[in-house]
Order: sequence, then C-alpha cells, then structure tokens
Amino acid sequence: MIDAPFPELAVGEKKRSRGRTMTETDVVNFCMLTGNWLELHCNVEFARHTLYGQRLVQGSMVFSIVNAMIPFDPEVVEAFYGVDRIRFLKPTFIGDTLHATAEIIRLEEHGSKHGVATSALSGVNQRGETVMSCEFSLLIRKERLQLSAIAAKGA
Amino acid sequence: MIDAPFPELAVGEKKRSRGRTMTETDVVNFCMLTGNWLELHCNVEFARHTLYGQRLVQGSMVFSIVNAMIPFDPEVVEAFYGVDRIRFLKPTFIGDTLHATAEIIRLEEHGSKHGVATSALSGVNQRGETVMSCEFSLLIRKERLQLSAIAAKGA
Repeated sequence: MIDAPFPELAVGEKKRSRGRTMTETDVVNFCMLTGNWLELHCNVEFARHTLYGQRLVQGSMVFSIVNAMIPFDPEVVEAFYGVDRIRFLKPTFIGDTLHATAEIIRLEEHGSKHGVATSALSGVNQRGETVMSCEFSLLIRKERLQLSAIAAKGA
Repeated sequence: MIDAPFPELAVGEKKRSRGRTMTETDVVNFCMLTGNWLELHCNVEFARHTLYGQRLVQGSMVFSIVNAMIPFDPEVVEAFYGVDRIRFLKPTFIGDTLHATAEIIRLEEHGSKHGVATSALSGVNQRGETVMSCEFSLLIRKERLQLSAIAAKGA
C-alpha cells in the first residue's frame, strides 16, 4: 500500500491484500515465539468451557499477520510509528481465512525528512466479518532510499 | 498481573516482568511467521543505509512479546479486548533485553458477566529506555472459571 515517498501519498488510497488461513500450526508457533501458553489458545479441553467454546487465534498474531499482509516498499518505509484503537471485534478461530484492507486516512509532516502516514487497517474473515480494526501509522521517507548506494544490491 | 476476577481488581496495581533478550533467531522466526521479509528486518546490507544503520526488531513482535511477558490467569481472562496508543518510542536492536511493566489504569463494566481492565503497558530495555508503550485492555470474568468443570484438569 505504501509504495511511494511521503509527498506522493494521498488520503483515500485503498488496498486489499490476498488471504491467509490461520492454522493450528500458526497458533502453536506463536505460543512458542512469545512464550505465552495461555490455555485459551493451547488447551482444547480448557477452551471448551470459555466464551466461544474453542481455542482462539491470538489477538497479537491476528494483528501481526494482518498488518504484514499489506506490502510496504522498503525504500520508503523508515520505521513503524505506532497504532491506535486496535479492537478485536469478532473472534478468530483456527481455520478462519483473513485478508487485510487498508485506506490512508491521515498524512502528517514529521521533521524535514519524514512524514507519518496513518491507514485504517482491518482484518476481514471468509464470512465478511471485520475481526480486527486499527489505525496503523508508519514513518515514511520524503525521498526514496537510493538503492544504488547499497552494495548487496549493486554487486 | 491480571490474576483475580474483575470485582477484585484495583486501579494502581503494578507488575514488572522478568526479562528476555530479543535475538536474531526471534527476528528471523517472526519473518517466517508473518511472511513479512521487509529488508529493514532481514537484510544487514540494506539496513546499514537506513535511519539506525542496522536491522530493527519488528515492532509487532516487540508488542507481542512484551504483552506476553506479563502473566495472566486463564481462569479470569476471557479475551483480548483491544489496545490504544501503541507507540514505538525507541528502536529495539538485536541483542537488546526487554522487560515489561504494567499498571492497571482503568476498570469498566462490560455486561453482566465481564469487565474491561485496561493497563498502561511498557517495554523497557537494558538501558532503562521505554521502547514501546500502550494501553492494553482485557475482557475479565466477574467470576472465576470453575476448574472442576474441566475434564482435562479433573481427570
């Protein structure tokens, strides 16, 4: 979505990603990565007695994968600035397939070399339900990084 | 931090976690999990030419691991409600060691069986710098889940 230097971005630009199924493998891998083995995510018998009667895909992973599904051009994205109003509007279950939608909603100057681009970012499942929404902000370069300066690419 | 049913929680309760070093292995594993191979995280030569001159630990992973470092009691935490004002205040580099601090700042009723507990959650590095801050909200049961009802534990 963010594939141009800051001065070339415009509020209202939209993007929709391809999809990805949230599998049991992803849920277990995320438990391993974070070290958080909360039974709501890793214990089928425990999860039977909770609000939704089954294991939930971790909210942090839904957020991490949904924001990764929108491609960013590394020559213009300098850093991750912040996120506002993350809400988990519906549960995500193992086997659900998510895609991301994003729309630029705000563009703010940030020093001489950067601007902050904020997008309304959502994760949407195969039933068309928005499971997660947030306002996602990136620090964007005003000038594209010169690839010719990078030895690994120039060699 | 959240280890009691909603009516027993109090604003001002604080917790500090143990620490964890953010390793190159974590950064690569997170690229694999999300499918996001942004060169800022995975290309040493590219990263040399960016703002901080080296690879950054992914912000989504800093957020995911910091919020996982504070233990939650699965008998009282029903679901992840949302997050506000995530800010990445300093970069996290490979080799940095983070711990989490959390303080309950807000308690709101949410239907007859639940409340929403919001904590000021921060990730702090070995230099005492806060690298990430946010307001982290969980849906908490008013009554503890009865473990005796759970076959896997009762057997």
